Amino acid sequence: MKRTHTCGELKINHVGLEVKLSGWVARNRRLGGMQFIDLRDRYGITQIIVNHDFADYELANSLRNEDVITITGTVVERKSKNPQLPTGDIEINLTNLVVISKAQTTPLIIDDKTDALEDVRMTYRYLDLRRPVMQQKLFLRNKVIHLIRNYLQSKDFIDVETPILNKSTPEGARDFLVPSRQHPHSFYALPQSPQLFKQLLMLSGFDRYFQVAKCFRDEDLRSDRQPEFTQLDLEMSFVDKEDIIAIIEGLFSYVMKEALDIEINTPFIRMDYDQAIDEYGSDKPDTRYDLKLTTVNDLFTATEFKIFQDVLKNNGTIKAIFIPQQVDKKQIEELTRIAQQNKAQGLGWLRLNQNQEWEGSINKFVSLTEKDALQKIFNSKESGTYFFVSGDYQIVCQALGAVRVQLAKDFNLANPNQFNFLWIVNWPLFEWSAENQRFEAAHHPFTSPTQDYLATFDCDQANARADAYDIVLNGYEIGGGSIRIHRNDIQERMFKALSLREEEINDKFGWFLNAFNYGVPPHGGLALGLDRIIMLLTNSDSIRDVIAFPKNASGLDPMTNSPSLVGDEQLAELGIKYQK
Amino acid sequence: MKRTHTCGELKINHVGLEVKLSGWVARNRRLGGMQFIDLRDRYGITQIIVNHDFADYELANSLRNEDVITITGTVVERKSKNPQLPTGDIEINLTNLVVISKAQTTPLIIDDKTDALEDVRMTYRYLDLRRPVMQQKLFLRNKVIHLIRNYLQSKDFIDVETPILNKSTPEGARDFLVPSRQHPHSFYALPQSPQLFKQLLMLSGFDRYFQVAKCFRDEDLRSDRQPEFTQLDLEMSFVDKEDIIAIIEGLFSYVMKEALDIEINTPFIRMDYDQAIDEYGSDKPDTRYDLKLTTVNDLFTATEFKIFQDVLKNNGTIKAIFIPQQVDKKQIEELTRIAQQNKAQGLGWLRLNQNQEWEGSINKFVSLTEKDALQKIFNSKESGTYFFVSGDYQIVCQALGAVRVQLAKDFNLANPNQFNFLWIVNWPLFEWSAENQRFEAAHHPFTSPTQDYLATFDCDQANARADAYDIVLNGYEIGGGSIRIHRNDIQERMFKALSLREEEINDKFGWFLNAFNYGVPPHGGLALGLDRIIMLLTNSDSIRDVIAFPKNASGLDPMTNSPSLVGDEQLAELGIKYQK
Repeated sequence: MKRTHTCGELKINHVGLEVKLSGWVARNRRLGGMQFIDLRDRYGITQIIVNHDFADYELANSLRNEDVITITGTVVERKSKNPQLPTGDIEINLTNLVVISKAQTTPLIIDDKTDALEDVRMTYRYLDLRRPVMQQKLFLRNKVIHLIRNYLQSKDFIDVETPILNKSTPEGARDFLVPSRQHPHSFYALPQSPQLFKQLLMLSGFDRYFQVAKCFRDEDLRSDRQPEFTQLDLEMSFVDKEDIIAIIEGLFSYVMKEALDIEINTPFIRMDYDQAIDEYGSDKPDTRYDLKLTTVNDLFTATEFKIFQDVLKNNGTIKAIFIPQQVDKKQIEELTRIAQQNKAQGLGWLRLNQNQEWEGSINKFVSLTEKDALQKIFNSKESGTYFFVSGDYQIVCQALGAVRVQLAKDFNLANPNQFNFLWIVNWPLFEWSAENQRFEAAHHPFTSPTQDYLATFDCDQANARADAYDIVLNGYEIGGGSIRIHRNDIQERMFKALSLREEEINDKFGWFLNAFNYGVPPHGGLALGLDRIIMLLTNSDSIRDVIAFPKNASGLDPMTNSPSLVGDEQLAELGIKYQK
Repeated sequence: MKRTHTCGELKINHVGLEVKLSGWVARNRRLGGMQFIDLRDRYGITQIIVNHDFADYELANSLRNEDVITITGTVVERKSKNPQLPTGDIEINLTNLVVISKAQTTPLIIDDKTDALEDVRMTYRYLDLRRPVMQQKLFLRNKVIHLIRNYLQSKDFIDVETPILNKSTPEGARDFLVPSRQHPHSFYALPQSPQLFKQLLMLSGFDRYFQVAKCFRDEDLRSDRQPEFTQLDLEMSFVDKEDIIAIIEGLFSYVMKEALDIEINTPFIRMDYDQAIDEYGSDKPDTRYDLKLTTVNDLFTATEFKIFQDVLKNNGTIKAIFIPQQVDKKQIEELTRIAQQNKAQGLGWLRLNQNQEWEGSINKFVSLTEKDALQKIFNSKESGTYFFVSGDYQIVCQALGAVRVQLAKDFNLANPNQFNFLWIVNWPLFEWSAENQRFEAAHHPFTSPTQDYLATFDCDQANARADAYDIVLNGYEIGGGSIRIHRNDIQERMFKALSLREEEINDKFGWFLNAFNYGVPPHGGLALGLDRIIMLLTNSDSIRDVIAFPKNASGLDPMTNSPSLVGDEQLAELGIKYQK
């Protein structure tokens, strides 16, 4: 036996017991002629005392951080207790020491705080994961996912595994491909989501399905994207939007309570997509702070400011936000950069300083009457800063929305301990692709139009609304779903509305359409991005911190050096070669 | 709302209630001027009565099997109750009928019994999965896997997801490769198992890890192989073999009891690998029946039978089995074919018929004294049949072992309701590869030698034993594992014992060996083949019956037609092309 107890469980009531512990040396220090070893395992830290009369004193003295040892000793009460530590009432009087494995100096310090570069952390991920803070994140991940499973099982959902080796369906993002050796020139594709399979499970009558599913997208990576990611996928039959929303709200209430002891209010607030764009400049607004976008066209109908005049003449929009803080020059420069990144021509600003003097980039163009009106609209008699973006409505919303988010960061407007769940509903069914000069599915081509647009969605693509819903947490989209089309005739109209040619439809989705000929229940579902949810629940900066072995921003794993070259023989077997 | 109840829950106490049900028409028959509709969903079947005065009588009359409908009606007590059906005490008096989705005639009948070809079943998998027997298998799968998770969570195991996009490690089976677009000419590989990652998690101090993991092997398929399969993967630190065996026995006791209400005895029987080969001719013996292989060399030391003489002269082996049945000529032909498939020269047989007369292929070469001795050895005074294979020990064991299995099938010796779990221990550490003219790892190169061979395993490869264990259920290997090498020096000796060159070791495993420089706990683990286990627990013929969307024996999915050709554009992006 390698241990009688873990390093986290010995308490005052164990005093007198002879115990055996195994773990890592977290610290080894000499104090007053004695040696104190902190022994660490996943469960905690226990202090070991080495008296000078210990036979292997030199061995104990030579122990270095991260050495793995097994010790035997007697539990004794500590003279100076450590109330911070669950085992802080006791220590172990060492009687026997076995060194299991010596450690070299680690390239990063095994401590919650680290200044190691991310590349070092990923190359030595097995050491990075020794840091208690990283372990806690993965334990929380484990807990949350298990709670989700328990909740859904208790609600009659069946967990079904769908294939990883799939057919390539070139809608949506780029597929990862897997060449088939047995069928030369053919490829499997890794799933972007189990969308078609989960709908088939409804057609099969499974009624309620879920899966914690690995999904894959071969996209250029950003800080919160990974080539493979984990989603909670679920689907229900004989339901409408309300049923799915109710299940998800129940799920989050349960998980937040059980995992974090946080009570959240249900039902969650719902917001129309149009309202979110108009008031927050985002389809995933963070509602922990207000700072709403306000349209101020009416205020400038008689303005002398040429830019605003032109905008209004061209049926454009002027929006403003107000923050009761003095935003300084450097911040304004950064905010202007952000507005321009989001395609705005610029960012106008006005500031009423603490001396009640107006200043700002558009100060001299805005009349006192207009300033008075502004203060009325924003109910802002006090000092503070106003920002303006004008021009095309979509751009104005998006750019000022981005300014809003940055301002909240700059002034810490968001409470990190608050969790604001929000539904965004009434999505557009289509979005216009300027690149492809056609309407594309805003979600995916299996999304049902709302009842109101069932008759007209294919003639009125610009206005048609989807029976879709996204769930947002603190400014992040954490999931989304829809009621699916369950009628073959509507699905065919949808494909045509997407300008897919008959043969293209048959080639890509013929088998799937055929499945709708044999009795289909109304159904709908949702997918949650688990990596991102865990990131938010653990207040992490990146989803890489809540994935045990992530890829870096280039899609590489610096630890295993993957992806890597493979042998010519392997390629020959697959019937493929490199293109020059 | 689409339903107030499911089709499985209405009982006599609901009589008088107005209800709404949704489901599939399982049967629609006219009887005495009335219409009886069996409405089916996942939860059960409810009978709907259509009286002649029902307004939409013609619509109800026109319903065909598999149409999806929503009905409203009143629960009434049945005149002739059906005790077979949980809802058999009641029926629904139809008051409103909505047809949700019409069904064409299905290409296979939605019934437990089917004579549909497997190709049809797979092409219309969504219909095949409507068959209640298939649903029950997937529900049992769901239940078993959830029980496994609950058990391991209760034992402090943490569920950690390891990557699907991996580095190719060309030991073991052939990898599926995934070309990287961002890193031209480089490939990810799909994991054959999370072996290295789970060991790293032990190095990170997670102590107890599990995962229900998707694994992939690009091998030529057999009836019980799939290119992707699901395994329960687990690993523990500071343990030896006994700890792992105890966890797994506890796990199976719990799962068998909770899922199937079957009590199984623990501890499971353990058998040395050598004994399994010697007595059963298999490393995965089915111990539900006896029929042991017996070495009968001693009996034929003075034989006049030339073949046996030669075998004994060449230090060969003669083994026999006895079955107290009259095996007939046709069966014997089949058994001979099986022995020869397993490289035996032939299969000798002797039969004592019901008239106490000896007959058989080697009857005239075997003396009466030898026959007497045979009867003593097998304690078989009664009539019955003896089979003999002679020659090289390994071939004799394997061939006669295969004969044993076939005999058990022919005479139904195995009780299908009995579950015999068995550990096979003391495995060889290496096996000789005649093809590559070198010793290869019998399990994988991270398997620890037993304590006895720690000093000599690399000099005495032929005899060295592994600290490994396989778990066998009713003649199927359902899992296996080992204590891992946790010392860097031993791992390096192991790689050398496998004749890997220094640079090859560094190239493939350098990063992994490096991880062993920073303090390593003793650790070991195991993986269970979940598809096969569910197959055995559901008495299915194939693992394809317990996988929702399997590939066929050629690795194809006839439903989606995957794998498939992809666009040249997609390939160009990946920098690869077909080889002529």
